[in-house]
Amino acid sequence: MSEAAPSGPPSDWTEKARAIGDRARRAARRLQRAGPAARTKALRAMAGGLRDRAAALRADNQADLAEARDAGLSPAMIDRLTLSPERIEKMAGSLVDVADLRDPVGEVLEGYVRPNGLCIQRVRVPIGVVLTIYESRPNVTSDVAGLCLKSGNAAVLRGGKESLRSNLAIHRVLAEALAAADLPPDAVQMIDTPDRDLLAALLRQDATIDLVVPRGGEALIRAVAEQATIPVIKHYKGVCHVYVDDLADLDMAEAVCFNAKVQRPGVCNAMETLLVHANVAARFLPRICRRLAEAGVELRGCERTRRLWPDANPADEDDWHAEYLDLVLAVRVVDGLEDAIEHIETYGSRHTDAIITEDVRRIRRFVEGVDSSSVMVNASTRFSDGGEYGLGAEVGISTDKLHARGPMGCRDLTTYKWVVTGNGQLRT
Amino acid sequence: MSEAAPSGPPSDWTEKARAIGDRARRAARRLQRAGPAARTKALRAMAGGLRDRAAALRADNQADLAEARDAGLSPAMIDRLTLSPERIEKMAGSLVDVADLRDPVGEVLEGYVRPNGLCIQRVRVPIGVVLTIYESRPNVTSDVAGLCLKSGNAAVLRGGKESLRSNLAIHRVLAEALAAADLPPDAVQMIDTPDRDLLAALLRQDATIDLVVPRGGEALIRAVAEQATIPVIKHYKGVCHVYVDDLADLDMAEAVCFNAKVQRPGVCNAMETLLVHANVAARFLPRICRRLAEAGVELRGCERTRRLWPDANPADEDDWHAEYLDLVLAVRVVDGLEDAIEHIETYGSRHTDAIITEDVRRIRRFVEGVDSSSVMVNASTRFSDGGEYGLGAEVGISTDKLHARGPMGCRDLTTYKWVVTGNGQLRT
Repeated sequence: MSEAAPSGPPSDWTEKARAIGDRARRAARRLQRAGPAARTKALRAMAGGLRDRAAALRADNQADLAEARDAGLSPAMIDRLTLSPERIEKMAGSLVDVADLRDPVGEVLEGYVRPNGLCIQRVRVPIGVVLTIYESRPNVTSDVAGLCLKSGNAAVLRGGKESLRSNLAIHRVLAEALAAADLPPDAVQMIDTPDRDLLAALLRQDATIDLVVPRGGEALIRAVAEQATIPVIKHYKGVCHVYVDDLADLDMAEAVCFNAKVQRPGVCNAMETLLVHANVAARFLPRICRRLAEAGVELRGCERTRRLWPDANPADEDDWHAEYLDLVLAVRVVDGLEDAIEHIETYGSRHTDAIITEDVRRIRRFVEGVDSSSVMVNASTRFSDGGEYGLGAEVGISTDKLHARGPMGCRDLTTYKWVVTGNGQLRT
Repeated sequence: MSEAAPSGPPSDWTEKARAIGDRARRAARRLQRAGPAARTKALRAMAGGLRDRAAALRADNQADLAEARDAGLSPAMIDRLTLSPERIEKMAGSLVDVADLRDPVGEVLEGYVRPNGLCIQRVRVPIGVVLTIYESRPNVTSDVAGLCLKSGNAAVLRGGKESLRSNLAIHRVLAEALAAADLPPDAVQMIDTPDRDLLAALLRQDATIDLVVPRGGEALIRAVAEQATIPVIKHYKGVCHVYVDDLADLDMAEAVCFNAKVQRPGVCNAMETLLVHANVAARFLPRICRRLAEAGVELRGCERTRRLWPDANPADEDDWHAEYLDLVLAVRVVDGLEDAIEHIETYGSRHTDAIITEDVRRIRRFVEGVDSSSVMVNASTRFSDGGEYGLGAEVGISTDKLHARGPMGCRDLTTYKWVVTGNGQLRT
C-alpha cells in the first residue's frame, strides 16, 4: 500500500471513495426495505447466472491467466487464480447453499420486560456496508457477495489486480441477478481499479462503511489495519498445535496428528507444531515420525525429539513461530500439560489448537488455558472451518477476539439493535 | 494527543508500553485460573476499601481540585472531578452490584452435535486485556476496574491528568483488595503519567492488549481511533430524536417529549431534535412548546414551526446536527414518517431515537428504517442506559455496530471460544 501523505490520499480518490460509500449506504437502506424474499431470489439468480455464463467467465479468466503467466506468477498463484468449470459450479452451489440458510435478520436475541413495563428486545439487524479486500481467488467475489446479500448488507469488493477481469466478469453476472430481483445495483459494488490510493481513501470512509474484512497475506492485513478508521476483522495466520498427553489413546493420537498435518497442509488449520508429553515420547514419537516421514513430511525437532528420531532436522526458534503451510512439521517434547500451554501461548497464533488425552481434568485445563479461537479435544485441527461447524459458507476465520472469533459465517455479518417498547414510560 | 512522528513514539515509551501490556497479559492469564470466587471476593474488598478510606480519597481529591481551580477549569469540569462522600458511596455500591451479577464467563452460548459426532460449543470467555481511556471523572476508575474484573479481564486504566492524584488513590485501594483476594496486582494497572507519547505507544500494543474503550469527548475518541492498532469501541455523541406521528396519543407525546428533553438535559440520551408530523403540528406544537419554554428550554424551529410558535428562534443546518447537552431543542415539522426517518438518517448519530404513535405499521417501519443502537416506541429516549436495560453497571453506550452496540455491560467485555470435542474424528 502506498505511503499516505500527512494530508491523506489525493482528493480525487477521496471523492471517488466517498461516492462509493454513499452509494453503498443508500443501497443498504433499500436492501433492508426489500425483505428476505427478494434477497433469496437474487441469490438464486446469481447462481443461475454463473452457470449460464460459465464459458464467458472462463474467457475473461484466461486473459487474467495469460497476463499472470507473462508476469511470472508462481504456479500456486496461477492455481488460485484459475476458474475451472468445477470451480464455477462450486461458486454457484455455494450461493444456493447460502440462499437456503435461515434468514439471520430479525432474529430476537433476547427479550424481557422491565419492572416499569418496558419491553426490551435485542433484534439482529444487518451491519450495513461491508468492504472486503482480497487477493487472487476470484471465487471470493461471489462467496462474499452472497454472504453479504443474505445478511442484508451492501458489499464493496476490492480484489487483487491480477484477477481484475475475472472479478469484473463475475460482478456483471451478480449485477444482472440483483436487477432481476429488483434490488439496487449498488448492493454489490466491485472496485474496478487496483489503485492503492483509492483503497487508502476507502479505508477512511467510516461515515458510510461499517466493517472491513481483509482476506489474504499477513502484510495485506497489517496494512489495512494500520490505515483503516473503519473497524477491521482480521484473519491472520494459523500456527496450530496438537498436544499429545501421556494419558492419550496413542492410536487416536497418531491418526489425528497424521490427519492434521497431511490431509491438506497448505491451509491455516493444518497442524504446524506437534507437542508430545515426555512420558510417552519414547513410545509415540518413533511411530508418528515414521508415518509422517513416509508421507514426505520434513520433521524439525527439539533435542529430545532428535534423540528419539535422529532423522529429524534440528528446530530453531523460528520453527516454533512458523506457519509452514507445507509438508513440514516442528516437533517438541514437553514436560507436561502446563509446558504445552506455555508453548502455545508463547508461539501460537490463537487460531486452533488440540489436545489428545483421556483425562477430564487435563481437558478442562487445556480448554481454559489455551486462548485460541477454536480448542479441539480429541479431534483434528482441520475441523476448524465454517462448513464443518455447520455455518454454511464462511467469510473467513477470524483471529480477532471482538465481534466474531474463529469461523465467521453469515450471522457474523449482522449486529443488533435494542428495540424498547412502552406505553408512555417516563424516566424519573 | 501529540503528533506522532513517522517513526512512532520514542522508543523508551514503547518499551514502557510493552512492559505494561506484558504485565497485563500475564495477569489476565492468572485471573482466568483464579476463578469466579476470587474475583467476587476482590470486588467486595474493593467496595469495603473505598468505604474505609473515603477520607483519604477525599484528601487526594482536594489536591486535584485545588490545582484544577488554579488552572481555571470550568465549574462543570470541577463538578465532574469532585469526589463527594455520596459519590464514593455510590462507587462502592456499584462494585457490590457488579459482584452480585451472574458470572458471564463460562456461559455456553450454543452447543450442538454435528453428523460426524463432533460436539461443538461456543463458550463465553474474557476478552483478555482491556485499555480504558477516560477524562476527568474519577469514579470511572473503580467502575471500569470492577466490570473488567467481574468479566475476568485485566484492566489498564488511563484517566485524565487533572484527576491523576484521585485516580492513583482509588487505585491503591483496588490494588489492596486484589492482594487480599490473592489476585495479581497487575489485574488493574493505573497509568501514572499523563504523557501522550506513552498513550500513543499503548494504543499500538496489539500483541498484548485486546480492546480499547475511550470514554470522553469526540476529539479524544477520534484521536484514539486514528492511532490505535488495537480494536476500539467508540462512544460518540447522541443526537437523539423524538418523532411525534399524527396517529400519536398527544398526551403521551407531550409527557415523553418533556421527559426526554428536561429530565436531565446534559446526557447523551436526552432528546436534541423534535420532529412533528405536519398533520398534528398545529395541535401539538403550541402545547409542547409552551411547556418546554416554561421549563426554560430555548426552542430553535424550522419555518413551519415558527409559524405555529413564533417565539422559537430560527434553526439552521447546524442545529439539526447539534448535540446541545443543554436546555435547547431543535424542532422541525415533517411531512410524515418517511420524512422523519430521512431526517434521522441524515442528521442523527445512531444513538437513540423514538417514535410516538398508536399505529402498528408505522412502528414496524420506524424500527426497521432507523439505524440506531436503540429505537424507542412510545417511551422516553432517556431509558437508553445499561441500568434501565437491566445490565447492572455499564462501560458506556457504544455507537459502534461491531461487538457491542448501545448500552455496553459486563457481558460485552467477553468474547467466546469454540470448544470442539470428539473421539478421534478425522477430516476427509
